[in-house]
Amino acid sequence: MSMQTFPQPIAQLIEAFAKLPGIGRKSAQRLAFYIINQSETDAVNFAEAIITAKKKITYCTQCFHLTDVDPCVICANPKRDRTVICVVEDPRDLLAIERTREYHGLYHVLHGAISPMDGIGPEDIKIRELVVRLQTETQVEEIILATNPTIEGEATAMYISKLLKGTGIQMTRLAHGIPVGGELEYADEMTLMKAMEGRRKL
Amino acid sequence: MSMQTFPQPIAQLIEAFAKLPGIGRKSAQRLAFYIINQSETDAVNFAEAIITAKKKITYCTQCFHLTDVDPCVICANPKRDRTVICVVEDPRDLLAIERTREYHGLYHVLHGAISPMDGIGPEDIKIRELVVRLQTETQVEEIILATNPTIEGEATAMYISKLLKGTGIQMTRLAHGIPVGGELEYADEMTLMKAMEGRRKL
Repeated sequence: MSMQTFPQPIAQLIEAFAKLPGIGRKSAQRLAFYIINQSETDAVNFAEAIITAKKKITYCTQCFHLTDVDPCVICANPKRDRTVICVVEDPRDLLAIERTREYHGLYHVLHGAISPMDGIGPEDIKIRELVVRLQTETQVEEIILATNPTIEGEATAMYISKLLKGTGIQMTRLAHGIPVGGELEYADEMTLMKAMEGRRKL
Repeated sequence: MSMQTFPQPIAQLIEAFAKLPGIGRKSAQRLAFYIINQSETDAVNFAEAIITAKKKITYCTQCFHLTDVDPCVICANPKRDRTVICVVEDPRDLLAIERTREYHGLYHVLHGAISPMDGIGPEDIKIRELVVRLQTETQVEEIILATNPTIEGEATAMYISKLLKGTGIQMTRLAHGIPVGGELEYADEMTLMKAMEGRRKL
């Protein structure tokens, strides 16, 4: 007698959930069962949210933030200060800074940090795109290197800082205030605000 | 200047993920970003797995296991021993018992346990369906009440045991061996096998 397992459609849904980052097999089962127990409308809405997000969301061709319009609402906003670009690793870091309501410049999202251990070099993140951008956006006076205060984030800030030496653009780094080794996106608004105010020259 | 947030399609996907059990806001963001960074094919496959599972998977009308054919492959299998029904809280418990390869009877999946604290009464789980089932499946000689060894699981076993008193059907409970307060689905196969062998009369 063969061992009984889940019918194919639910086994496939469990597989699909288990492929997601941070979702183990038990969680994947729990999530699949939840879907099965949902109303058909809820399940269809969830599936459509996936398709819609995938289809409509792209990277802003200027700053590489996630967006459904290009350029994104930040780059397109005439009130933003175009003399400052804040370079972050991740769109969540951008949102964390936006929540302080204290920063009114532009952004540049790298989508990662240099990490030789993980095989991520400067060419794997949006560094070249920043250099290209600065050739047309000649009004930029300061670049805030707001990468995470981790080994990878510091290395990335150092790399960009060296790369742009001689451009005359002032390079700054967020003040300590963010816990060292911590992730920028988990910092509270006050800490981020202090870090922004106390930013130092490199 | 209004606070910037995620564009609508990604905000909706984050919402959809955050509704799932055990997924917090940070995890929901991480999962949504993962979807955005996937290939379009992968995203479509994931969405289709949700729709397909929801459409094709139903409860077996006999045992209430999740199935894509009715009756399910266990109920339809002529080699299964129809004199024993093993009552479990959840389809995952059924699969855990199947993995021991030691049990060859039928099942009945309750889809929950009696829990007055959570407002779950006997009428909210598949107990009435078990009683109805026994009116036609008159060959049943034993019912193994394999609900979890938790307060809710014990209460459910007691309730069913009292309800079926006088039917002449032997009620049994899995032997201790399953850690008290633990979840049946996390028990290893040997523990479950011992528990099955040592089942006691109620």
